[in-house]
Amino acid sequence: MAIPSPALLDRFAAIVGAAHVLREAADIAPRLVENRGLYHGASSLVLKPGSVEEVSAILKLASETATAIVPQTGNTGLVGGQTPRDNGADVIVSLERMNRIREVDPVAGIMVVDGGCILADVQKVAEEHGRLFPLSLGSEGSCRIGGNLATNAGGTAVLAYGNMRQLCLGLEVVLPTGEIWNGLRRLKKDNTGYDLRDLFIGAEGTLGIITGAVLKLFPQPLGHQVAFAGIRSVEDALSLFRNASGLCGPALTGFELMPRIGVEFTTRHIDGVRDPLETVHPWYVLIDISTSDSAETAERMMSALLEQGFEAGLVQDATIASSQAQQKALWHMRESMSGAQKPEGGSIKHDVSVPVSQIPAFMHEAEQAVMAAMPGARICAFGHMGDGNIHYNISQPVGADKAEFIGRWREMNQIVHGLVMKHEGSISAEHGIGQLKRDELASIRPEIEMELMRRIKKSFDPAGIMNPGKVVVV
Amino acid sequence: MAIPSPALLDRFAAIVGAAHVLREAADIAPRLVENRGLYHGASSLVLKPGSVEEVSAILKLASETATAIVPQTGNTGLVGGQTPRDNGADVIVSLERMNRIREVDPVAGIMVVDGGCILADVQKVAEEHGRLFPLSLGSEGSCRIGGNLATNAGGTAVLAYGNMRQLCLGLEVVLPTGEIWNGLRRLKKDNTGYDLRDLFIGAEGTLGIITGAVLKLFPQPLGHQVAFAGIRSVEDALSLFRNASGLCGPALTGFELMPRIGVEFTTRHIDGVRDPLETVHPWYVLIDISTSDSAETAERMMSALLEQGFEAGLVQDATIASSQAQQKALWHMRESMSGAQKPEGGSIKHDVSVPVSQIPAFMHEAEQAVMAAMPGARICAFGHMGDGNIHYNISQPVGADKAEFIGRWREMNQIVHGLVMKHEGSISAEHGIGQLKRDELASIRPEIEMELMRRIKKSFDPAGIMNPGKVVVV
Repeated sequence: MAIPSPALLDRFAAIVGAAHVLREAADIAPRLVENRGLYHGASSLVLKPGSVEEVSAILKLASETATAIVPQTGNTGLVGGQTPRDNGADVIVSLERMNRIREVDPVAGIMVVDGGCILADVQKVAEEHGRLFPLSLGSEGSCRIGGNLATNAGGTAVLAYGNMRQLCLGLEVVLPTGEIWNGLRRLKKDNTGYDLRDLFIGAEGTLGIITGAVLKLFPQPLGHQVAFAGIRSVEDALSLFRNASGLCGPALTGFELMPRIGVEFTTRHIDGVRDPLETVHPWYVLIDISTSDSAETAERMMSALLEQGFEAGLVQDATIASSQAQQKALWHMRESMSGAQKPEGGSIKHDVSVPVSQIPAFMHEAEQAVMAAMPGARICAFGHMGDGNIHYNISQPVGADKAEFIGRWREMNQIVHGLVMKHEGSISAEHGIGQLKRDELASIRPEIEMELMRRIKKSFDPAGIMNPGKVVVV
Repeated sequence: MAIPSPALLDRFAAIVGAAHVLREAADIAPRLVENRGLYHGASSLVLKPGSVEEVSAILKLASETATAIVPQTGNTGLVGGQTPRDNGADVIVSLERMNRIREVDPVAGIMVVDGGCILADVQKVAEEHGRLFPLSLGSEGSCRIGGNLATNAGGTAVLAYGNMRQLCLGLEVVLPTGEIWNGLRRLKKDNTGYDLRDLFIGAEGTLGIITGAVLKLFPQPLGHQVAFAGIRSVEDALSLFRNASGLCGPALTGFELMPRIGVEFTTRHIDGVRDPLETVHPWYVLIDISTSDSAETAERMMSALLEQGFEAGLVQDATIASSQAQQKALWHMRESMSGAQKPEGGSIKHDVSVPVSQIPAFMHEAEQAVMAAMPGARICAFGHMGDGNIHYNISQPVGADKAEFIGRWREMNQIVHGLVMKHEGSISAEHGIGQLKRDELASIRPEIEMELMRRIKKSFDPAGIMNPGKVVVV
C-alpha cells in the first residue's frame, strides 16, 4: 500500500473540512503512540468526521484509492490496535467529534449513542436517567464506545453483566467500501440470519468502523456492598469465590483478586490509597454485591458470606465499606494497580484467562517459572477472578535496567502464555490482539481457524484498507 | 446440484457402515416432513455418523462431489430448516447417534456434549450433578443440542439466562470442506480474533455441522416461586412486568403472557390442565422467580410483587403454586398452548418480537388488522413478554375450511409482519429463518446486510453444499 500523495490527502481533508483535519506533525504525534510505549507509528493525516455520512465518504475514497485507514477513538488500547503502522501509509480516522447521545429510553432500558461517546459520559447519562450502564474500566474517562465495542471490552462488571458484546443490542457500521450497515436493532430476541453484530464486535476495526450502537441499560441496584478481605492463598480465594457465587448468584457483581505487592504499590504511589486492613496478608479479594430488591438483601448476603468465610478459615481479616466514598476507595485501589507499577520501573504485562478452577495451579506454575527465569522479578498478578481473567504483570527486579528488562518481554510472554495454553486458556482475555499478539495468535491457533478469519476479512474488505496489519494478516 | 447416483450413495454409506444408513423410502419418510406440515422434501439417503471423523469424511466427500447435505438433529424445527428440498438431491446427515455427554464439571459449571444429545437428557445430567442447564422449550424431549445451537434456541428461560448463544462457551464444528474446527473453549473471557462461535450459532446448518459444544451450567436456585395471575389488559401486564423486573432483577426467571382463549384451548384439549383461577380474565401472566441465597427471598419477592400488583389494580386475581407439582402444572399449561391449537383446526403461526415497550400497541394494531381481514379468526397470541417475543398464532374461525384458511398463511404473515416492521421488531424472534422466512428476510433487510451474509456463506462453503436453500440464497 503506497503512501498517499498530498493531492490525495487533500481529497480526504475536503470530506471533513479543514477545521477537522490534523496535518502538522506536532498535532498528529499523540495519535501515533499508545500508553505502553510499545508501538510508535507514522501518519501524515488525522481526519475527524462529524457524521456517519462523512465516515462513509472517507472509506469510499479509501477503497477506491487503496488508502489504508486506522480507526481511533480514545487511543487507550493496550495491544497497538489503534496505532498506525510505521510506514506512513495509514490515514487515521478519529471518531472524537461523533459523541452524541442519540436517544435514552430508561423505561425500555436502552440508549443509542455515537461511536465516539466517552464511556464515562455514557455511564453518567444513564445514571441521570436512573439507570446503570455497567461497563466499567480503568480508562473509562477517556476510552470511547466505538473502541469498547471494537475490542469487546471487559472490565470489572463482567461477572454479572458480561462483556461489551452482552451490553449491546445493535450496531451501525460503515463498511470498508463506504456502505453503511444500519443494524441499530433494539430487540432482546432476533434470530434472523448470521450474527453480523458479534462479528463486528471484537474485530478491532479490521472489518469496518462502528459509528453507532444501541446499548442496554439496567436498573440501578437498591443494595450495594463492597468488602475487602485478607486471604492466605489463591486456593482460599477460589473457595471463597465459589461460596460467594453460590450464595449470591447474579447478585455477585465483582470478585477481584490482588496480591500483597499490588497493595504495597498502590499505597506507595497512588494518592489517597491506604491499606484498608491493619493486618498484612499474601492475597486480598475485593467482593462487590448488588441487589435489586432491597439494600438489606445485599447486607445480609455480604454478612453471611464473610461469616461463613471466617468460620471456614478462608477469610483472615475483612472490612466492609460503610459509605459510598469507602466503596469507591476500595475500587480505586484495585483500578490503580496497573498504573501503580509504573513508578516501580518496567512492567511486562499479560492479559490472560484460564478456566476459573485452574487459576491456583496456573498461578503457582507461572510463579515458579517466572522466578526461575528471572530471579528478583516482582510478580503483580491481579484481576477478575470470577471471570478467570488475570492481569499477570511482572515488575522489574529492584535496581534492574529497565530497557534490558523490557527486552525480555517476548521471553516472559512465552513462559506465561505457554502455561496459559497448557490450561486451555486465552492469551488475550479482554484487551484483544492488535499488533502485539497477532503473530502469536497465528502460531497457537489451528490453521483452519486463521483461514476462516482470513476469508471473512477478505470478503468484507477486499481492498485490504481497514486497519491493516492488525489481528490477522491476509 | 445433481441427484446423487446410486454409486455415490454407496460411497457415502460406506463411511458410516450399512447398519447406520437409511435407504428405504418408508424409513426415510419421517425425516422428510416437519411438524407443521408446511414442507415435504425428498431424499434417498439418511446417514447416521457415529463420530466427528465420520461427519468430516461425509462432508469431504460431499464437497468433492458437489453433493448437497442437510443436517438433522431432533427434526423439531419450525421453519423448514431441517427439511430437505423436494428435488431429491439432498443427503440427510442425522446426528442422533452422537449423543454422548463427554464431560461434566459441576464445580467449573461446564458440560461438554455431542451435538446429538437430547436437550432433556442434558438437563437431567446437569440436575444429577446438582446444577441447572436452563434452556427449556416445548420440544425438549426430542430436540437436540446441535439443532438448539444451529437455531440459537430461546424458550422460557431467556429472560434470566439468555438464548443458546449465551449458554455456550465453545463449539466443535465440521466445516463444509470436512475440516474440523476445534473451538471447544471453556473460557468466560477470550478476545482473540473474530467471533466464529457466534457465527456458527444461529446459522441453521448452512456454514457447517455443530458436532460438539461446551455448555454453561448454573447453580440450582434455592428459592423458586411460580404464580399465575388474571390481568385486565396487555398494558397492565407490561406495567406488572416492569414492577417485577425492578423488584426481582435477575431473579425474575420467567414472565409469560397468555390470552383467555389459550387457557380455554389448553383446559379443553390437554390432559390434566385445569384453569388455575376461579374467575375469568381476558389476559393472564405466569411469573417465575428463582433466587440463589434462600427460599425466603423468592417467597418475599413474589408476595411483594403480587401485593403491589393488587394494590395498584394491575392484578385481578392470582394463585401461587404451593408445590413443585403445581409449579410444573402451571408451566405445562403455558407450554401446551401451541399444541392445544391443533384440535381447533388450522393455525397460522408467527414468532415475532418487538421492543418490550411496544407490545401493547403491537397487539392492539395486530388484532384490529387480523380481525378486519378475517372476521371470526381466533387470535391466540402468547409468549415471552419479558423478551418482547410473542407467538402471534391465529386459529381458524369456527367451522371454516382448514385448507382454505391455511391458504391465507402468506396474507396473514404480511399483516402481522408489516406491523412488526413498523415497530422495528423481528419476524423471527427464536425459530430462525429456514425455508419459511428466507425470501421474506431478503425483502425486508437492507441489501448490504444480505450481501454480507452471502459473502460469509460463499467463503465458508464455496461448493455450496451445506443445507442449500436455507436462510440465504447465494
